[in-house]
Amino acid sequence: MVGDQSGRTEPRLLRGFRDLMPDEMIARQRLISVVQDVYELYGFVPLDTPALEYADVLLGDYGEESNKQVYQFTVPEGDVVALRYDLTVPLARVVAQYRDLPKPFRRYQVAAVWRADKPGPGRFREFIQFDLDTVGSESMLADAEIISGMCDTLDALGVARYRIRISNRKLLNTLVAYAGIEAGRAHDVFRVLDKLDKVGLDAVKLELTVGRVDASGDPIPGLGLEQRQVARIEEFLALPQETRSEALDAVEDLFREVPHAAEGIEELRDIDRFLSFLSISDAKAAIDFSVARGLDYYTGPVFEALLLDAPKFGSIFAGGRYDGLVERFLGVKMPGTGASIGIDRLLAALQHLGAVKMRPSTASVLVTVMEPDRLAEYQAMTSELRQAGINTELYLGTETSLRKQLQYADRQKIPVAVIAGSEEFEAGTVSVKDLLEGVKHDIETKEREEWVRARFGQRTVPRRELVPTVNELLRAQSHQS
Amino acid sequence: MVGDQSGRTEPRLLRGFRDLMPDEMIARQRLISVVQDVYELYGFVPLDTPALEYADVLLGDYGEESNKQVYQFTVPEGDVVALRYDLTVPLARVVAQYRDLPKPFRRYQVAAVWRADKPGPGRFREFIQFDLDTVGSESMLADAEIISGMCDTLDALGVARYRIRISNRKLLNTLVAYAGIEAGRAHDVFRVLDKLDKVGLDAVKLELTVGRVDASGDPIPGLGLEQRQVARIEEFLALPQETRSEALDAVEDLFREVPHAAEGIEELRDIDRFLSFLSISDAKAAIDFSVARGLDYYTGPVFEALLLDAPKFGSIFAGGRYDGLVERFLGVKMPGTGASIGIDRLLAALQHLGAVKMRPSTASVLVTVMEPDRLAEYQAMTSELRQAGINTELYLGTETSLRKQLQYADRQKIPVAVIAGSEEFEAGTVSVKDLLEGVKHDIETKEREEWVRARFGQRTVPRRELVPTVNELLRAQSHQS
Repeated sequence: MVGDQSGRTEPRLLRGFRDLMPDEMIARQRLISVVQDVYELYGFVPLDTPALEYADVLLGDYGEESNKQVYQFTVPEGDVVALRYDLTVPLARVVAQYRDLPKPFRRYQVAAVWRADKPGPGRFREFIQFDLDTVGSESMLADAEIISGMCDTLDALGVARYRIRISNRKLLNTLVAYAGIEAGRAHDVFRVLDKLDKVGLDAVKLELTVGRVDASGDPIPGLGLEQRQVARIEEFLALPQETRSEALDAVEDLFREVPHAAEGIEELRDIDRFLSFLSISDAKAAIDFSVARGLDYYTGPVFEALLLDAPKFGSIFAGGRYDGLVERFLGVKMPGTGASIGIDRLLAALQHLGAVKMRPSTASVLVTVMEPDRLAEYQAMTSELRQAGINTELYLGTETSLRKQLQYADRQKIPVAVIAGSEEFEAGTVSVKDLLEGVKHDIETKEREEWVRARFGQRTVPRRELVPTVNELLRAQSHQS
Repeated sequence: MVGDQSGRTEPRLLRGFRDLMPDEMIARQRLISVVQDVYELYGFVPLDTPALEYADVLLGDYGEESNKQVYQFTVPEGDVVALRYDLTVPLARVVAQYRDLPKPFRRYQVAAVWRADKPGPGRFREFIQFDLDTVGSESMLADAEIISGMCDTLDALGVARYRIRISNRKLLNTLVAYAGIEAGRAHDVFRVLDKLDKVGLDAVKLELTVGRVDASGDPIPGLGLEQRQVARIEEFLALPQETRSEALDAVEDLFREVPHAAEGIEELRDIDRFLSFLSISDAKAAIDFSVARGLDYYTGPVFEALLLDAPKFGSIFAGGRYDGLVERFLGVKMPGTGASIGIDRLLAALQHLGAVKMRPSTASVLVTVMEPDRLAEYQAMTSELRQAGINTELYLGTETSLRKQLQYADRQKIPVAVIAGSEEFEAGTVSVKDLLEGVKHDIETKEREEWVRARFGQRTVPRRELVPTVNELLRAQSHQS
């Protein structure tokens, strides 16, 4: 028990975790609903799996480094359990467990995942993922749909410049053979290549060979590759890739003599064709040979999305094909492809781009309380507005002055106030105040008291006209903004 | 690692946990969105807190019995952490930690909570709660709003017969004094009274006195109260309570001589008045002296909702006022009131009442694939339908026959299929099939092959009329159902 002498418990967050305040939550929920609407248009359906699973079910596919980040513990009954690290392995478990799921199974899941990662600025141990997967289809159309949905999502969110970058693990495997690197080291190479964007080519070359020291002073051991091996990787990364077809022609040319190269190229040609049918341009979705993705389980196409005007946020969407993931449970291969959207990262990037409005409230109207004895009448007004579908808050605080109640509305960014004092009650009227108008004048006059008195943007109407007057004002405000 | 000889991992759920399949998830999401819409109308805003917190932050308010059910463990860094047991204590932590939150703070949170409870049929260790709380207002209007929102929610969900039952901990404390029971035993008494609905009066009387043996054969120790004490409790429970005001008059009469009774009665009178202003009838919201609620932290009004036609599901909504909950962190009292909706329990009850339709898919249309070479054209149809806002699935499975593809649509309850074979492509047409119509005929003819051939409910139209034809059919179907 942490507390001061008074025995109080100190209210504090667990290190690496955070609270989401209403403004962020409202924005997050809107974002999730945009993604959800797009992928439901594509026929994806929601699924939910538990946060806790048996540890042996969750572990085994991520690779050693990631396994270390899984929260594990033993419950009193003796089971070793773990908090989910992602939503893909639980999906593989579901597909193996419920054999009669219709195939292809297109599901989405929006849920928290936990990683006992090194916390840092903007890096949390709990975050939301929005996962999309299609299991049971070998068609590259499944991959193309997920990519296309991401384009639709980013378009719907008003992101002007983004790029989905696509590569293929089969091609990367070919590269490993082409460079004369033993196949067992492929995943190590991919994990280094995956850092290209973040650390640049020179740092990657050091990590492939002798190692380097990172910004924090920690040594990163090198893979010990030879210069001629690195040269071949560089040659691959330097292929022209202005358009998808140019990139595919170039890689076909490079790997003409390399065994097994054709399959990965063919898959990318399929994806290119399907995206072209959907009129998705080379600018929006490009072949990019530097994309590798860190996780071990990918077996075919891999892809990620960057917001070109917010590159420091990294990839906000990433995924690929994992035809072996269900096999660990099922004993037979089951094709699957999918992607995760880092909702919190995407939200942060959109905030950075000014593409989301942050509001601490969803209320459109505050009914102020001037005469506490007439609560029944204020309640009736509130109730009428709500019945008309208008989010309305009845002021429940302790402030009795109108000025303070309007300040509360202002702070909560509630755009309309309803005011009824003795004057209005006697006359059978009610006043409706445009608080956006008030704020505008506030800026001009700098005299809060004055604008309250001056009743800028305030209209007094017969009581029965409350709802239409508020509706009219809200419509006018939405046209202004 | 659990697996068979082949080294496979057995795909299995952790005991006490479950997966939610798409049909249940779709229904759950709709339910959540109804509740969310109602309470956003009331000005409630979303908040999110982490699943994991320091154990000392989470523990201390629930009472001993509940504390045992909190999942706790030590992370490698040495911190003792716990998975949240409810959403109320995290809210109290937030209110204490962020002192400048606007008051009153009306927030909702929809999130999983975990309880290492005895699992059983329909009883899981992870479940979703929808919590509503207003912190910082002493007004009983805050309590009345939460109750009124619950009535609006149940009305919106089409529940014909429900009852919110309201009591007050202050009155129950008065009862304890009236019965001559020492104050320190009050919470024990409340926890027994809380079982009244589930186990009946005789069992409650045994638990108050000598104890009893429950259905599973486990002994439940008694509180050892004397007969005359139990008689006074019985007298209280037997008060007439046909209407809220009758109940309040009766309890006022009974407790006329008992110190401190007035405050609890006054609070209930306020709530009665506020509910009456909102035209909430005695049938929908009643005073019921048997309501106690198990948790220790309640200090004023307590309430719960029952679906009268599905009583075995217990209370699907429960809460009360907890003016002391923030104090543990803050050192000063901070009024608060709130309630939890057990979303999963409510969903189960609604299913039982036939008030929710279960569908494994949200898609309205399946575009079938008859000519694999013409995928571009099928993609174009799919894309047009999606652009018109119609949830559309392009068939990506391995079945090549129309019959099998239509069976898939049928199983997924997708009501419309789009069919284009060589005939249609040559004629520049497309066929749109009403699968609900098909199912109807299916029932009559019992010959699946026949209805496919007979093309019941199938219309062939020029290709450019695809979207309007589908729209028209979907409108017609929605009028039929």
